[in-house]
Amino acid sequence: MIKVAINGYGTIGKRVADAVAAQPDMEVIGVSKTSVSAEAYIAKERGFPLYIADIEKRESFEKAGIPVAGDVEEMIKKADIVVDATPGGVGAKNRPIYELYKKKAIFQGGEDADVAEISFNAHANYKEAIGKQSARVVSCNTTGLVRVIHALDQAFGVEKVRAVMVRRGGDPNDIKRGPIDAIVLNPVTIPSHHGPDVRTVLPHINIVTLAMIVPTTFMHMHTVQADLKKETTRDAVLEVFRSHNRIGLVTKATKITSNAQLREYTQDLGRPRTDLWENGVFEDSVSVLDGKEFYCFQAIHQEADVIPENIDAIRALMGTVNDPDESIRMTNEALGFVAI
Amino acid sequence: MIKVAINGYGTIGKRVADAVAAQPDMEVIGVSKTSVSAEAYIAKERGFPLYIADIEKRESFEKAGIPVAGDVEEMIKKADIVVDATPGGVGAKNRPIYELYKKKAIFQGGEDADVAEISFNAHANYKEAIGKQSARVVSCNTTGLVRVIHALDQAFGVEKVRAVMVRRGGDPNDIKRGPIDAIVLNPVTIPSHHGPDVRTVLPHINIVTLAMIVPTTFMHMHTVQADLKKETTRDAVLEVFRSHNRIGLVTKATKITSNAQLREYTQDLGRPRTDLWENGVFEDSVSVLDGKEFYCFQAIHQEADVIPENIDAIRALMGTVNDPDESIRMTNEALGFVAI
Amino acid sequence: MIKVAINGYGTIGKRVADAVAAQPDMEVIGVSKTSVSAEAYIAKERGFPLYIADIEKRESFEKAGIPVAGDVEEMIKKADIVVDATPGGVGAKNRPIYELYKKKAIFQGGEDADVAEISFNAHANYKEAIGKQSARVVSCNTTGLVRVIHALDQAFGVEKVRAVMVRRGGDPNDIKRGPIDAIVLNPVTIPSHHGPDVRTVLPHINIVTLAMIVPTTFMHMHTVQADLKKETTRDAVLEVFRSHNRIGLVTKATKITSNAQLREYTQDLGRPRTDLWENGVFEDSVSVLDGKEFYCFQAIHQEADVIPENIDAIRALMGTVNDPDESIRMTNEALGFVAI
Amino acid sequence: MIKVAINGYGTIGKRVADAVAAQPDMEVIGVSKTSVSAEAYIAKERGFPLYIADIEKRESFEKAGIPVAGDVEEMIKKADIVVDATPGGVGAKNRPIYELYKKKAIFQGGEDADVAEISFNAHANYKEAIGKQSARVVSCNTTGLVRVIHALDQAFGVEKVRAVMVRRGGDPNDIKRGPIDAIVLNPVTIPSHHGPDVRTVLPHINIVTLAMIVPTTFMHMHTVQADLKKETTRDAVLEVFRSHNRIGLVTKATKITSNAQLREYTQDLGRPRTDLWENGVFEDSVSVLDGKEFYCFQAIHQEADVIPENIDAIRALMGTVNDPDESIRMTNEALGFVAI
Ligand SMILES: NC(=O)c1ccc[n+]([C@@H]2O[C@H](COP(=O)([O-])OP(=O)(O)OC[C@H]3O[C@@H](n4cnc5c(N)ncnc54)[C@H](O)[C@@H]3O)[C@@H](O)[C@H]2O)c1
Ligand SMILES: NC(=O)c1ccc[n+]([C@@H]2O[C@H](COP(=O)([O-])OP(=O)(O)OC[C@H]3O[C@@H](n4cnc5c(N)ncnc54)[C@H](O)[C@@H]3O)[C@@H](O)[C@H]2O)c1
Ligand SMILES: NC(=O)c1ccc[n+]([C@@H]2O[C@H](COP(=O)([O-])OP(=O)(O)OC[C@H]3O[C@@H](n4cnc5c(N)ncnc54)[C@H](O)[C@@H]3O)[C@@H](O)[C@H]2O)c1
Ligand SMILES: NC(=O)c1ccc[n+]([C@@H]2O[C@H](COP(=O)([O-])OP(=O)(O)OC[C@H]3O[C@@H](n4cnc5c(N)ncnc54)[C@H](O)[C@@H]3O)[C@@H](O)[C@H]2O)c1
Repeated sequence: MIKVAINGYGTIGKRVADAVAAQPDMEVIGVSKTSVSAEAYIAKERGFPLYIADIEKRESFEKAGIPVAGDVEEMIKKADIVVDATPGGVGAKNRPIYELYKKKAIFQGGEDADVAEISFNAHANYKEAIGKQSARVVSCNTTGLVRVIHALDQAFGVEKVRAVMVRRGGDPNDIKRGPIDAIVLNPVTIPSHHGPDVRTVLPHINIVTLAMIVPTTFMHMHTVQADLKKETTRDAVLEVFRSHNRIGLVTKATKITSNAQLREYTQDLGRPRTDLWENGVFEDSVSVLDGKEFYCFQAIHQEADVIPENIDAIRALMGTVNDPDESIRMTNEALGFVAI
Repeated sequence: MIKVAINGYGTIGKRVADAVAAQPDMEVIGVSKTSVSAEAYIAKERGFPLYIADIEKRESFEKAGIPVAGDVEEMIKKADIVVDATPGGVGAKNRPIYELYKKKAIFQGGEDADVAEISFNAHANYKEAIGKQSARVVSCNTTGLVRVIHALDQAFGVEKVRAVMVRRGGDPNDIKRGPIDAIVLNPVTIPSHHGPDVRTVLPHINIVTLAMIVPTTFMHMHTVQADLKKETTRDAVLEVFRSHNRIGLVTKATKITSNAQLREYTQDLGRPRTDLWENGVFEDSVSVLDGKEFYCFQAIHQEADVIPENIDAIRALMGTVNDPDESIRMTNEALGFVAI
Repeated sequence: MIKVAINGYGTIGKRVADAVAAQPDMEVIGVSKTSVSAEAYIAKERGFPLYIADIEKRESFEKAGIPVAGDVEEMIKKADIVVDATPGGVGAKNRPIYELYKKKAIFQGGEDADVAEISFNAHANYKEAIGKQSARVVSCNTTGLVRVIHALDQAFGVEKVRAVMVRRGGDPNDIKRGPIDAIVLNPVTIPSHHGPDVRTVLPHINIVTLAMIVPTTFMHMHTVQADLKKETTRDAVLEVFRSHNRIGLVTKATKITSNAQLREYTQDLGRPRTDLWENGVFEDSVSVLDGKEFYCFQAIHQEADVIPENIDAIRALMGTVNDPDESIRMTNEALGFVAI
Repeated sequence: MIKVAINGYGTIGKRVADAVAAQPDMEVIGVSKTSVSAEAYIAKERGFPLYIADIEKRESFEKAGIPVAGDVEEMIKKADIVVDATPGGVGAKNRPIYELYKKKAIFQGGEDADVAEISFNAHANYKEAIGKQSARVVSCNTTGLVRVIHALDQAFGVEKVRAVMVRRGGDPNDIKRGPIDAIVLNPVTIPSHHGPDVRTVLPHINIVTLAMIVPTTFMHMHTVQADLKKETTRDAVLEVFRSHNRIGLVTKATKITSNAQLREYTQDLGRPRTDLWENGVFEDSVSVLDGKEFYCFQAIHQEADVIPENIDAIRALMGTVNDPDESIRMTNEALGFVAI
């Protein structure tokens, strides 16, 4: 059993914890919080030992009926590997302590690429990560792009990618961030930084990305356009997507035309936390014009798509499974995850 | 086993179906849809026999891989009782067919009060509904008001109620309805129709309600002010709420101050479809000024609070359980529902 | 003086009326409404003779203190030309009456292209419209696309255009339409109908468009990508835009990065109804990659950009001004409109 | 001519500047900004001398084509009175410099009451402010409440007020603040701080307020309930409101039922920046139940209602006009402001 600590039990951390707990070869030895909140009660409810960043706050947790197992340092010492899911930028500050205790560490997409030895995506570069000391699971948007670009590249070769990312303003439980009634260019300049981020995993891909932020909470929406190297057909592309176990197709018969309805669907399916772990590619949008010009819309659930990638990254760094497909299959199976 | 048909498998109907399926004394003998959609796939996935309103559409369902059990009339014939969860106003049109086949029927709050023999809330008037041929489960807002007013009335006597309802614009999966950036008075006139609707269940209550609609999807928010007959204290009121099994208290320690965060909490708790079946009363808001003037904020999950009421209404009409508390306990237990 | 009637005094109609009234060579001989509303008071306040669709409603207008000049037919008879700004699809139904009285007519983008003899944009095809009996001013989105594509095409030649339109859900005063919290693909299929609509004005342009709808009210946002025929530079493109009198550049120094802030700026500038009549191209976004690959973001104020085009269309159909530049200059000057 | 400096040329400051410039007895001797932005260009466009907080930034302004008149201290020295419209809390930090130069100062509602000698509302306590050295114009919400409560109190006597404030999340040009899809209790506790703030102007009023924040940008919406001392009628209350020159009635005939449509109306009326300077009381909502229980809905334009109050506060502090009605009349007239 791989002993996993999750440092930062928030939007990403709480999902990683449940996903780890579901795996046959891993266990959660602790999760961490900075202050009392609803999520601390959830940690207790799940039975995860709760460690806290500032041990002086122990009393405030105990008053609220939440037992404290110790401070974050103690948690790290007990772990084989730490998944750092603290807010963007905090991970880099935490790195020295993981190094001090010689613990393997996985960082999230809010960190710069140089926080870790490798930027990771299970389908694209699992093998390169095997045995490494640290990895960064690329951001939700980058993960979504990498999955589809890598799949196209393997099948047809990708000459050039142009993607427009229409991003959610804040996560559903975020009551501070807007915008309320605006489309915000973020950044105004073209290209955005997402292209270079894709290249941390797929260095040979020629890609231009544009990004904006809109008032929605449930998922990002991408338009992906790719010039393919080989001529192909819409059906051939759909076949590639259908056979990919982290790309789902939103079919016409569902009448789903938005992130909101797609979330309702995953909710109805009983997915934990309504998570859409896969790319939600809209089947009707998949187009190949003039034989080589690919287009599609895809919904990317920012809170969810990186979760299975974190699990695979754990196995890759620990070196317990050397076949990417084997790890991906194990992860999906333990989650009860079959792409829609 | 009570044989239950659910006519209209949408936002309310799909939840009622799952809740019925969870009860030890009931079974879902069929659900109905008008056309192919994501929800039709969910019915199939759950194993509910699917009946369709217009049998001419059978082919379109079967092409989409969804088996059709027959038309709605056949479903009704097989049932002991029908839960009508069709859109507001359609229930009244369906009534003659339930009468034709002498089936008991439960309608929803989108219908006028005269659609059924009684307007129903489990805690308030279960006994009066026993053995009746039809009942209307009052709307989400009215259910939320009735629960808290009835509890206060039982404990302290209620002289007068003033409530302001800040309503969600549309359900989360509704992509048509707004507003996008507006507060809409609905109606502009004061009082709104919600007061009279409360009186269909609690006829003796003096109540003035005001209502508006805002751009949110997750829950309504109510401010409830009541002049009490007996002097009391904040603690005594909290005790009444704590001992009520369909009123939950959102505590300060959770740091939840909004519908959005409350929904995240029910989602983290693993509630099916993130449902908040109970009233979400904010503990910190519960106030008693000058001994008799009660105030609170409560969140009402429009999609969920009426679900357990539908289950109790089934037992009341069927006359299988005569003690309201017994039915409420059975319903909650089968749902795994313990108020937060 | 050209006698102009405006049939349909709503979002577009009321703006056209004010713009006509500001021109030295035109006068508003009447505007029309179907029922009493805030806009009827505005017509009165502006001193525009108000005609009504259904003369039976005369009393309801007069009770509300709004004098009625007659019915729509009378208005049409008095006019030289009618600007039809009724809701999409109603224009086509109104066409026979314009023909009956042999009146020239201008329709809006909510109508199909075949409603009129020509689809119109002042910079692109004014001359072809001269003397015609009817014209359709293309939609807000199409007008925005045509301006920038035509300018690029004139200067550098355009090989291919790919545009993604992120559309506002409803106009600011629309309290019915959503979505509240969703990104809606509209349509899901690729390409959208906007490309063909551009080709009603610029038939030789190879263009693929994608469209979605988001919860904002103020403006659409476009990403425009064009493969140019001639090599060029960012500066050369900026120069083309700067010298275009219906394209404005949103400079970096303003710190404007969104439709919301751009609207605040036009409001601060004292523009009537805060109208952004020009394309709002974000200067920082203007990019030329590899010499021939153009990119930019542009904000398109749906309520406003078609207004000056309607004015020019009046002159073209009436044949009073034969030089497009002369008409455009007259229109802009009378509006006090200098592109930002 | 009263020489007025406006320190902080943002949402409130830019409106105060235009309002001052419109008065016959005042002039704007300068406005201040901290950094280059769209508003700096507006100051230039209006011809207001621009002073900057940090004179080291002079070059960045000049590079952007915006002349700098000097630093804030120089501006203050030239003024008879300073209107401080810096962000909440900054005013208190600025106070010592106004004192140093013995300048009268007006602060905004984002400051604590003790920032100034008096909390001000023109109709309620103009006379008490005459000749004072400093005043705080109470916040947008408090101004809106004070106007209507004071008017009712003068006419009928007010026993008790209960008000629920449904507040806009951010101003229209604010792209950072949310919420996107939430109703946020702010605060969760009851009563909110708005009641005590009303009492800084009307100390004898018994008032309980509740407040929440919703995803809208245009205006706050209040429900006001008051127990009156004298019996009265709806018509008598409407008469009081009609004769009040800073309360407007939104009539039924306009079909306006929301803040969004009300804003469209002020925009159509040509109000500068679409400002609703008055309380927008919905005529249909005005109710008197049982002779003494008053109810209404009112829309409060957060950016605008305090503007005329600032102008009156200038005259009161300067002591140039001793009759409140005279100042209010002068202010309104110069603005071309007749309540709707
Ligand atoms: N939310 C998303 O949509 C999303 C998607 C992909 C990647 N990410 C990335 O995942 C990371 C986490 O983001 P999130 O959205 O889960 O953030 P979050 O704010 O929801 O959760 C962060 C958690 O870390 C805890 N924390 C903060 N400081 C800490 C410290 N010093 N030590 C220990 N714990 C601390 C907080 O209490 C909180 O529980 C970021 O790098 C982010 O960029 C987020
Ligand atoms: N959604 C809520 O928030 C909410 C809350 C409380 C009560 N209600 C009430 O519950 C009822 C149902 O509302 P909903 O939100 O679930 O609606 P919905 O639109 O989500 O679902 C209605 C379902 O009925 C089906 N249907 C439509 N016409 C039909 C017909 N003639 N025969 C059979 N099926 C038909 C539709 O296919 C759909 O699946 C309404 O009375 C509503 O007022 C809704
Ligand atoms: N609103 C936009 O963003 C926008 C942008 C570009 C083009 N358009 C197009 O402009 C046209 C008008 O749109 P709008 O947004 O101004 O609509 P609107 O609903 O705001 O206004 C339409 C007006 O027409 C009146 N009307 C309705 N039926 C009528 C009839 N039979 N006879 C006379 N008057 C009638 C209504 O009272 C209303 O005042 C449509 O074709 C639309 O597609 C709209
Ligand atoms: N916006 C509203 O809805 C509203 C309504 C009523 C009252 N108020 C109050 O008015 C005040 C101003 O609010 P606002 O919304 O106009 O803020 P804002 O942020 O729009 O404008 C503040 C301006 O002050 C400038 N500024 C910041 N620090 C400064 C400093 N140290 N010296 C000089 N200038 C400085 C900024 O550049 C900006 O232009 C606050 O007290 C606020 O609470 C605001």
